[in-house]
Amino acid sequence: MRGVILHGPGNITVEDRDDPVIIEPTDVIIRVAATCVCGSDLWPYRGIQKFPADAPMGHEYVGVVTELGSEVSTLSVGDFVVGSFMASDNTCEICRSGYQSRCVNVHPMGAIGTQATFARIPLADGTLVATPSQPTEAQIPALLAASDVLGTGWFAAIAAQAGPGKTVAVVGDGAVGLLGILAARHLGAERIIAMSRHADRQELARRFGATDIVEERGDAGITRIKELTDGLGAQSVIEAVGTDESMKQAIGATRPGGHIGFVGVNHGVEIDGRGLFAATVHLHGGPAPVRQYLPELIDLIMSGAIDPGPVFDLTLPLEQAAEAYAAMDQRRATKVLLTV
Amino acid sequence: MRGVILHGPGNITVEDRDDPVIIEPTDVIIRVAATCVCGSDLWPYRGIQKFPADAPMGHEYVGVVTELGSEVSTLSVGDFVVGSFMASDNTCEICRSGYQSRCVNVHPMGAIGTQATFARIPLADGTLVATPSQPTEAQIPALLAASDVLGTGWFAAIAAQAGPGKTVAVVGDGAVGLLGILAARHLGAERIIAMSRHADRQELARRFGATDIVEERGDAGITRIKELTDGLGAQSVIEAVGTDESMKQAIGATRPGGHIGFVGVNHGVEIDGRGLFAATVHLHGGPAPVRQYLPELIDLIMSGAIDPGPVFDLTLPLEQAAEAYAAMDQRRATKVLLTV
Repeated sequence: MRGVILHGPGNITVEDRDDPVIIEPTDVIIRVAATCVCGSDLWPYRGIQKFPADAPMGHEYVGVVTELGSEVSTLSVGDFVVGSFMASDNTCEICRSGYQSRCVNVHPMGAIGTQATFARIPLADGTLVATPSQPTEAQIPALLAASDVLGTGWFAAIAAQAGPGKTVAVVGDGAVGLLGILAARHLGAERIIAMSRHADRQELARRFGATDIVEERGDAGITRIKELTDGLGAQSVIEAVGTDESMKQAIGATRPGGHIGFVGVNHGVEIDGRGLFAATVHLHGGPAPVRQYLPELIDLIMSGAIDPGPVFDLTLPLEQAAEAYAAMDQRRATKVLLTV
Repeated sequence: MRGVILHGPGNITVEDRDDPVIIEPTDVIIRVAATCVCGSDLWPYRGIQKFPADAPMGHEYVGVVTELGSEVSTLSVGDFVVGSFMASDNTCEICRSGYQSRCVNVHPMGAIGTQATFARIPLADGTLVATPSQPTEAQIPALLAASDVLGTGWFAAIAAQAGPGKTVAVVGDGAVGLLGILAARHLGAERIIAMSRHADRQELARRFGATDIVEERGDAGITRIKELTDGLGAQSVIEAVGTDESMKQAIGATRPGGHIGFVGVNHGVEIDGRGLFAATVHLHGGPAPVRQYLPELIDLIMSGAIDPGPVFDLTLPLEQAAEAYAAMDQRRATKVLLTV
């Protein structure tokens, strides 16, 4: 098969890789229908995060089951499936409490590398959710988004307790922040403030449900959010960047008793305990338990109730993965879909 | 009147101070019946936290109303009252959301100094709750505890979502940690693990409802908590110290998706964002909105349902405040009540 490999910072190739095979009886093999590049893939691409030599890349995927392990009982060959970036058994106590991304038997899909023509999916019964019918071409991007960015934005909005009567501020206008806006709107938030200074992303933010745009950052951004909220700060804040500055901005923009959902993979974040104590906010985040939301998200997408697909603003064939990474790195694209 | 003054680290005196007078029409004056020394009073006493020159001390109090401002409508002279360490209007949007300690018009009582024979209480209608009848001598320590340490332990237990079916770990065996145990028991927690290495505090922890004692600290303490919880960590953790080590211990002892209530006034705490992201816990804390809980706590105390009074293990007259501070500083006492 063909697959994407990171050899060193900025050095992406598409190469022949061994076809995946069933290793555990709970595995399935899928033919990948679409995959994509994640903001978190840029950390190793930029050399900011360590990675193994000749690392297979990618953890987002939708596709069709081609082979079943002997213990797989809920799936059939030919099923169109969506799975999370974390494979999980969905039966352990942590999974049952809704935190499948921290399953006691978790397999990070990034170690397998789903930017490829085929992929082995561990713990398939727990990990994959089949669509009720074969999706249309137009539904595939939306289902692919559910695999990570939509599910992550959904978790962030729920962790921030976005809902009716609430003002939600969203720090970060990348794919996750934008889909956090979509999630907050679906959850019934009254007002959604997107913090963005890029015209194209502002437009998408409004399309997904943002009611206000704040271009200021840092302390000026916090001041602006307070001005828009009677001096109190937002009840709900989504942090979807993962830097020290974005976390400070999120904490500062939240009113006492408010909730922050943080889902940006943290790099260099140090939270001052005294400041957090004084802020009196709720802070919850981490790798999103996307699996928890997949049945609902698939229903909403297949019924047309939501369409996160437009978060992909560039589509390229898998063979052009190097250009996909470069486009996201240089912010020429928000999120690149790779057709397989 | 007489009042406690901190002149410099370790230098506590009891002196004549001007009698308090009504300044705002929403003030009342109370004759203090009992006050006490807080763990947080030890930070300036030890010179670790800055304080004003000749600082009046104390923020916990119960007493009898002796004088009413012209706009006070819910209280009468002679009422026995309990108030929080933060005076609040109890009408602003933040108060109404349950965060009276962050009232937009908040007055920290520590700036007034309630280790004294009389005290001015700002925003009296919002701040004070009168007992339904005059308390007995035996009830006064319990009501005094409600003013801060009980209310703070209560908030910590609620922030940690202690409740039926939950295992609660309590980091810190000071007065707040001990009353966090009492709160967790009242909230119906199934198992309560006190982290303590002092025999006298272990005994009080068991009396308040602890089912298990863990003497190990740091990584060894985390390992022990995991051993007691099927390798997963506790669902609910109370952090009642406020140091970097105690916060790390709390985060490490919490299972994915679990809740930490942190109420130790933070000193030198830096939370590593990446570690918090990986932990996937809920973190909530700050100055406890004690006022929210006062009506319920007073009912529970006056009816005999709970008795936090034993948290005071030394009682001294106000004139011996210097010895009270020394006893707590040297850990000869957990919490000292000052009779007035």
